[in-house]
Amino acid sequence: MMRDRAAPPCLPRHRSEGTELRFLHTADWHLGRLFHARSLIEDQAFVLDQFVALVRDVRPDAVLIAGDVYDRAVPPPEAVALLDDVLARIVIGAGVPVVMIAGNHDSAQRLDFGARLLAARGLHVAGRVGAETTCVTLVDAHGEVRIYALPYAEPAAVRDAFGVDLSSHEAALGAQLDAIRAAHPAGVRAVAVGHAFVVGGAVSESERPLSVGGSGAVAAELFHGFDLVALGHLHRPQTIGGRVHYSGSLLKYSLSEADHRKSVSLIELDGSGEVRIEQIGLQPRRDLRILQGELADLIAAGPGDARRDDYVYAVLTDTGALLDPMARLREAYPNALAIERAILARSGQAGEAGRQLRELDTGSLFANFFREVSDADLNGDQRRALDDLLAGMEASERESA
Amino acid sequence: MMRDRAAPPCLPRHRSEGTELRFLHTADWHLGRLFHARSLIEDQAFVLDQFVALVRDVRPDAVLIAGDVYDRAVPPPEAVALLDDVLARIVIGAGVPVVMIAGNHDSAQRLDFGARLLAARGLHVAGRVGAETTCVTLVDAHGEVRIYALPYAEPAAVRDAFGVDLSSHEAALGAQLDAIRAAHPAGVRAVAVGHAFVVGGAVSESERPLSVGGSGAVAAELFHGFDLVALGHLHRPQTIGGRVHYSGSLLKYSLSEADHRKSVSLIELDGSGEVRIEQIGLQPRRDLRILQGELADLIAAGPGDARRDDYVYAVLTDTGALLDPMARLREAYPNALAIERAILARSGQAGEAGRQLRELDTGSLFANFFREVSDADLNGDQRRALDDLLAGMEASERESA
Repeated sequence: MMRDRAAPPCLPRHRSEGTELRFLHTADWHLGRLFHARSLIEDQAFVLDQFVALVRDVRPDAVLIAGDVYDRAVPPPEAVALLDDVLARIVIGAGVPVVMIAGNHDSAQRLDFGARLLAARGLHVAGRVGAETTCVTLVDAHGEVRIYALPYAEPAAVRDAFGVDLSSHEAALGAQLDAIRAAHPAGVRAVAVGHAFVVGGAVSESERPLSVGGSGAVAAELFHGFDLVALGHLHRPQTIGGRVHYSGSLLKYSLSEADHRKSVSLIELDGSGEVRIEQIGLQPRRDLRILQGELADLIAAGPGDARRDDYVYAVLTDTGALLDPMARLREAYPNALAIERAILARSGQAGEAGRQLRELDTGSLFANFFREVSDADLNGDQRRALDDLLAGMEASERESA
Repeated sequence: MMRDRAAPPCLPRHRSEGTELRFLHTADWHLGRLFHARSLIEDQAFVLDQFVALVRDVRPDAVLIAGDVYDRAVPPPEAVALLDDVLARIVIGAGVPVVMIAGNHDSAQRLDFGARLLAARGLHVAGRVGAETTCVTLVDAHGEVRIYALPYAEPAAVRDAFGVDLSSHEAALGAQLDAIRAAHPAGVRAVAVGHAFVVGGAVSESERPLSVGGSGAVAAELFHGFDLVALGHLHRPQTIGGRVHYSGSLLKYSLSEADHRKSVSLIELDGSGEVRIEQIGLQPRRDLRILQGELADLIAAGPGDARRDDYVYAVLTDTGALLDPMARLREAYPNALAIERAILARSGQAGEAGRQLRELDTGSLFANFFREVSDADLNGDQRRALDDLLAGMEASERESA
């Protein structure tokens, strides 16, 4: 297991004043995201104000931001300004160090700008993957804790950085983790901040698949030896096997998340490496709700609904024709996003089929389409050619301006 | 002249070890620029390596980068990575503070990312204009020098930041400078870093006009009271009135610059505020040259030309038809960019007319077009409507992703 690699320095060091280390873990902010063509920037600023207040109140030893900070490689300028403001308020205003990694929605190179300079002030950013993993040391009464920042990386990027031949997400992450373990000092607690899809995790509709033509999933066992693994990617808060934790996303970013309770996670790590996780809810500026019923009933209920400013997705059960239902619905619910006609969904079957279709990745959708028009399945070569093409398009979309 | 405004703090302070202050002044890097569809990123990295070596050698008290750091609001990721690397080598590697402002090609908000955190490490970035101008204090044996960083800003942005009604570039810059002078302590030397078009400056073809339907020019007298004004925007190195200095651009970014000698400026400021400027040439990876002659002669000269890798613009004097002249020229000059046929330019007249046309801004081009198709000039209202439209398009292009 030991490799011919010098132990990487793990600097700078931050000293903790408490008897156990406390982290605030969050992820998947997706700043700059559009939802049904509406900008969510004010909603994002609203909950991030609460998050900054929480940081000031809790005074954790570090804030961990586990990727998908932005929604796309080139975020709109107001998203850049919001992130700049929030980070300055945490790092300068509250004096709390931040460890932040790139997710699959972020541009690794763009997020890396100024990283070496920012680290001096307590903002530790890991955008691009490298043979040396970004590492920060915390020191408490029990000794050291090393926090390893593992940015999301395509297998090809890990192959280039490590000079190892590999092609899957699991092999790529495994190579990074092996290198860390080989150089990690015995008896020192280890925390990983990462962005990955762990097998068994519950998915939502707003997560962009990590891999075309495959799940990109990794086994939770891959992280063996780490006391805490703070992850991003899956939007539902969840813990897998006790130590692998998703904080979940900042807001509800798809209809499939309407029943989520979004939160950030306060994680305590004691001297023996035991972990305690508490989820702390954030109040959205507007919630996302699905309302079902006849249009007239929904409209009638609007004036008495204290949360009529919520983002509303309406499933209308009316059987007859409706004149301009969206305009009428918006008089009662001004932030109504979309309408679905239950009757048109043939008692829900087509609706369910549509939902299933929406969950398929592009490769599978194309394979279905191919089968319908050609009466034959894609053969192995065709499927591989398609996957290569889609992977190339996705990589180029992620990195190009 | 005094305003009801508290004197802004001018921090942090950097202490000089020499008997006079020394600056390295550069501007208009335009990282990410395409030239005849070719990326110049390797050329830019090549001269910036020399610049970093010069910084290590000269050890100035500060490096001043006067705007147009990037060529466009959303630069390609490799340009972001190059700037990150160069700044880290100067600020961390050489330990020299940097004052950098946004030019009219940069996105003010994007360049501002991390500014408050970066300042702690010695990288002072001014992207967005604000009522308080970014200020850095240097201290030498003679006392203090304040460096004011004035990012390029549209008049509308200055109007918003200062709450003053103004509409011209001169009024906007004047308002910023008045506010600085009103709060500047007597007897302290003052340096401004700005991005502007000063009346009398020599223009090149690669500078994007600051103002649609007007020159956007400001009088040099606007800067009265400053000991040194280190500017960007004009690509030819030049000094106007002794104290107002353009370092010029990093590389030749248009044919009109073929005769330029590109350089960075070493500026010494003594205790009495006297300025001495020395231009230090940088060696480009490939020069830009205009070659004139018959195709066969140019091709014959290529193998013996020690600089055959230069970017070459060929003016061919052949009078007959030529078969695929670019492919043939590139066998001799592999980086030939373009060919102009002197014969087609009717003894140079059409060539000159074409050159004049290329120097016109979009508004004037449209006015010419309107005159040709309608036999009438744009009236005042039409011209204003056009200018508003173009200004809006330009602003939106600058800020949108």
